[in-house]
Amino acid sequence: MELKEQLNNTQTRVANTIANYFARTLDTDDTIKEATFYSINNGGKRLRPFLVYATGQMLGAHLADLDIVAAAIECIHSYSLVHDDLPAMDDDELRRGKPTCHIAFNEAQAILAGDALQTIAFELLSEHTFKVPMAQQVKMLNTLAKASGIEGMIGGQALDLAATNRLVTLDELERIHKLKTGALLGASIELGALCATDVKPSTHQALQRYAQNIGLAFQVQDDILDIEGDTLSLGKPQGSDIENNKSTYPALLGLDGAKSKAQALINDAIAALEEIDEDTAVLADLAHYIIERKY
Amino acid sequence: MELKEQLNNTQTRVANTIANYFARTLDTDDTIKEATFYSINNGGKRLRPFLVYATGQMLGAHLADLDIVAAAIECIHSYSLVHDDLPAMDDDELRRGKPTCHIAFNEAQAILAGDALQTIAFELLSEHTFKVPMAQQVKMLNTLAKASGIEGMIGGQALDLAATNRLVTLDELERIHKLKTGALLGASIELGALCATDVKPSTHQALQRYAQNIGLAFQVQDDILDIEGDTLSLGKPQGSDIENNKSTYPALLGLDGAKSKAQALINDAIAALEEIDEDTAVLADLAHYIIERKY
Repeated sequence: MELKEQLNNTQTRVANTIANYFARTLDTDDTIKEATFYSINNGGKRLRPFLVYATGQMLGAHLADLDIVAAAIECIHSYSLVHDDLPAMDDDELRRGKPTCHIAFNEAQAILAGDALQTIAFELLSEHTFKVPMAQQVKMLNTLAKASGIEGMIGGQALDLAATNRLVTLDELERIHKLKTGALLGASIELGALCATDVKPSTHQALQRYAQNIGLAFQVQDDILDIEGDTLSLGKPQGSDIENNKSTYPALLGLDGAKSKAQALINDAIAALEEIDEDTAVLADLAHYIIERKY
Repeated sequence: MELKEQLNNTQTRVANTIANYFARTLDTDDTIKEATFYSINNGGKRLRPFLVYATGQMLGAHLADLDIVAAAIECIHSYSLVHDDLPAMDDDELRRGKPTCHIAFNEAQAILAGDALQTIAFELLSEHTFKVPMAQQVKMLNTLAKASGIEGMIGGQALDLAATNRLVTLDELERIHKLKTGALLGASIELGALCATDVKPSTHQALQRYAQNIGLAFQVQDDILDIEGDTLSLGKPQGSDIENNKSTYPALLGLDGAKSKAQALINDAIAALEEIDEDTAVLADLAHYIIERKY
């Protein structure tokens, strides 16, 4: 199956899991339900769910378990986008060509919708009856909390805010991205693996190395696309990083240097996969896609 | 032991559990750590932790387990206060006599600190090794997620926002409070009970009836204090509900009617406790305190 088709499949499965959740009779205010549903159905690439499915299926996990994990992680990612877009944060009005939540609804609803999406992630993971032992379910919950919290995604966003309007070193930039995006990408792979049993420690390690590399490569490519891409493909104004005085890889390394950096990271991701006994073709395809994508 | 002493003990235990968490080397931006710590160390009464300890100790739970549960629930409560105080929500500058988080830091830090506190709640619950079976731990995580989410606390805040500047019926007001505050108070009792084993279903039911009654009574008393209290004791401007066009029990029932309502709720809470075989003296004391307190 082509990578594009697999990405489409992932998007459909996530949409279905989310639709199932919202199909319940949720006895609350209609607007908050709409704002929350709007925020998760945001036309995202679903890269994190894709990593969950690719890793879990490679290791023999049950699809029904992966559905829950994939949706939970995407809820965390989506909530972070809703809050990052708020006027007090990045103040973005457009995401993937659609009005951001606080524009489509209002700021109060966007704050609550983000809060709700975070809660739904932990609700989904704690409600589902997994095929794996309960200790692995508790470990999934803990891994997701750590990756999305103050030492993970939130910590990265805080560092990013602190770095706005000043020059950062390459090490600082790398640390920001490792927390802000790398932690949750790593968790996607780890939770996918936690849906399987008898996974070798060396496989876990190789997967983490792969995750860190593609996470950083993804960010470098984002910075490159902010310069080379066009507004229509990106779904956000081209050049917005420069506009917002954000430090980027091309600013620190030059455009060619940034491209070499992205390629080196992908090479190391592919090398990590060679440590794994299973068929890693899908993960390898994804690594190549990361730096070939145009949006 | 006097109730006041027990409340003080609870406050100390929560402070210690939180201090332990923040004593770890949290590798992230210092400001977000400070803002998060500031937001949980807010001088709150710690009513929810008190319910956790009172219920759990009555049923023979281990203190170390209750410490984690109490801190986790208080993290959820504190995050909701930080976000509710934001300019886009209730726009409050003062809470318990101290500047709210977005005043002491800024809006972006307050959004992130609230987000972080929610995550810490689930991190604490999923990280701790409980004395009870893991199935009860997973049930705690799920109960907390449901009570704080779109069908609980967040849903209640959304209904509350939707009700601002218009008259609501008594039924609507009750529904708002059942979700906004009742759900988490109920969860405090339920999680306290989940730290014990062999709890009779009839005890669970009686405790839920108790929780619903004191939760609503607490809110009625808050509305009464907004009229009768003084700014210094309340730590927020007296009369702020009227200022903010919030519907209140005294507005709907008159001041005497509201006081009768609070007393009736407490009577029913005490009646519920009579269904329980254990020594319910502490919970009974708390019920009386709810409507006797002056702030």
